[in-house]
Amino acid sequence: MREFIPPATRFIDLPAGFAMKRGGALYGARIAYETFGRLNAARDNIILILTGLSPDAHAASHADDPTPGWWEVMLGPGKPIDTDRWHVICVNSLGSCKGSTGPASIDPDTGEPYRLEFPELSVEDIADAAAFTVRALGFERLACVIGTSLGGMSALALLARHPDLARSHINISGAVHALPFSIAVRSLQREAIRVDPQWNQGRYDAENYPRRGMLTARKLGMMTYRSAQEWDSRFGRARLSPDRRTDEEQFGLEFEVEGYLDFHAHRFLHRFDPNSYLYLSHCMDQFDLGDSCGGTADEALSRLRLEKALVIGVQTDILFPLRQQRKIAEGLSASDADVQFLSLESPEGHDAFLVDINRFGPPVAKFLSVDW
Amino acid sequence: MREFIPPATRFIDLPAGFAMKRGGALYGARIAYETFGRLNAARDNIILILTGLSPDAHAASHADDPTPGWWEVMLGPGKPIDTDRWHVICVNSLGSCKGSTGPASIDPDTGEPYRLEFPELSVEDIADAAAFTVRALGFERLACVIGTSLGGMSALALLARHPDLARSHINISGAVHALPFSIAVRSLQREAIRVDPQWNQGRYDAENYPRRGMLTARKLGMMTYRSAQEWDSRFGRARLSPDRRTDEEQFGLEFEVEGYLDFHAHRFLHRFDPNSYLYLSHCMDQFDLGDSCGGTADEALSRLRLEKALVIGVQTDILFPLRQQRKIAEGLSASDADVQFLSLESPEGHDAFLVDINRFGPPVAKFLSVDW
Repeated sequence: MREFIPPATRFIDLPAGFAMKRGGALYGARIAYETFGRLNAARDNIILILTGLSPDAHAASHADDPTPGWWEVMLGPGKPIDTDRWHVICVNSLGSCKGSTGPASIDPDTGEPYRLEFPELSVEDIADAAAFTVRALGFERLACVIGTSLGGMSALALLARHPDLARSHINISGAVHALPFSIAVRSLQREAIRVDPQWNQGRYDAENYPRRGMLTARKLGMMTYRSAQEWDSRFGRARLSPDRRTDEEQFGLEFEVEGYLDFHAHRFLHRFDPNSYLYLSHCMDQFDLGDSCGGTADEALSRLRLEKALVIGVQTDILFPLRQQRKIAEGLSASDADVQFLSLESPEGHDAFLVDINRFGPPVAKFLSVDW
Repeated sequence: MREFIPPATRFIDLPAGFAMKRGGALYGARIAYETFGRLNAARDNIILILTGLSPDAHAASHADDPTPGWWEVMLGPGKPIDTDRWHVICVNSLGSCKGSTGPASIDPDTGEPYRLEFPELSVEDIADAAAFTVRALGFERLACVIGTSLGGMSALALLARHPDLARSHINISGAVHALPFSIAVRSLQREAIRVDPQWNQGRYDAENYPRRGMLTARKLGMMTYRSAQEWDSRFGRARLSPDRRTDEEQFGLEFEVEGYLDFHAHRFLHRFDPNSYLYLSHCMDQFDLGDSCGGTADEALSRLRLEKALVIGVQTDILFPLRQQRKIAEGLSASDADVQFLSLESPEGHDAFLVDINRFGPPVAKFLSVDW
């Protein structure tokens, strides 16, 4: 498979025999990360960002890579996560295909890509690998861990398993576990990939790539990232102009919304490793903060040792619905943390944190700007 | 293809050269229907039911077919649509595969199934064929037209095109046109069928049937028929017991919600003609009551000649969201009709009218029971 690693990405080697929660161990594995802003003398200005399913570690542009990053609106000098003040580390999840070791990486035992021989991935593994990375960089104490979407799950797992690592936490559109609608969406996405003959039990290559399965999976994802209301005002019932109809067959694409899904799905092709997608998607369904800590999610949250936390959800999010962020905030309220819960009206659904800077910027900036 | 026609179904022949709105004409076509309850002497107790995408004309059990019908809870002696009082006609949509002529029917020109040679289907064609059926049965005036889901669209088209045919209307989870989220869902369902090599441009048979495409299409549909909240309480994060796991592969089905989708999708296989599914699904996206009547939907609704109307929507419906029923009610309010709008709290989403008899039964019964 083609590599998907942004140019300024750096790497931390995981220790040989890095144990995976559900069995197996990794040898020669590494975690990809990027940093933004400068470490201060007191070494107390460090923020860790844990990402959703598909992003890489390149969260924003900087001198070594001026390409805009996936959270460009939020991260940079003078931005809500202000790199004039903070030293920010963004980690690419273990199991991904953007530099960290995953199913597309070479298995040192065989000299071939792991593919489905990669051990089962858990959110806890992603969290442990990120915690190891932070410590390997010489940091024992983070000012804040920020997690979005899957990153919101990874962050909770990290805080539960490494309770002294962070002083504060911002959880954005996260959850303590997946609910059945999200499980169904992801199950159908995985099924679309698995039934594509080109997937071939994970033994595809760039020429024989599960194109159809990845297109369907991505379209399905896109349908859950925004909200029906946003689509109403954005697309309505507008038709594609004839020159934009790529599919002239009977029942071919006709509406703007169909063109939008098709365009973005095609853009995703060959940019993400299908096996990696399966592993990451599956670990989101499996994760349960309560089970992970041997009790209920509320108990696990009540035991987190944070000074303060900001939990943000979006009213139109159908993938990580608002009731899940409310649950996180309620659980954290039983801990010693000062907890703030924000329910935002953004029409952009689960994706709002990527685009609705007007609503997300101020509360994040305020949380991070107070003296502490 | 196997036939899907319930045993008590009867037929009305459409006139030779039945003109289709978007071009073409049908010869030797017929409409399947069933009747329930007795016609009274005054011939003023007739109700017409127009259905959603998949149902047949067998809405409820009766002497000639004791099998429970798709609206068994609502229709029968002493039920909300009381067959002790009403003579009810349920029509299978033109283009369907449950007795009415559709893509799986034999094209008299060739002696072969129409398949993709069936002319483009519109909601207006479904409405005209239903209106013809009613008149061919000798009825010029209906007490009420009831339409659910796609049937809610067909009913509005029928009322607009045949304004003197009905005195009243019950619109349940219907719409004047499709919005982008629903278009996207159906587009993806059609795509799943179309990319299945077994679909073969519509030239499948029972042995070479687009099984994978139909499974994905049905699962996608199931995801939009209920609500996430219902699934939370019904499935939560419960796992399938090992004996119910039909798929032992890596990334195979594991959660109850996955088993539910898989079970129902498999049950749908070979029960619906894939080409018919494509035609009916596509006509739902195309329909626009305003365009159909040469103006806005509000104008079309304001011109309907009804004495009264009941419009019901469900707050958790994501396929035909509540704002669409509100729009119908608002539009009808400018007509001479006495309009009642009900927003129901059912957790069952778009499917609520099929199952939530406690909420749907009383208002429908009351609307129909008042002397008029």
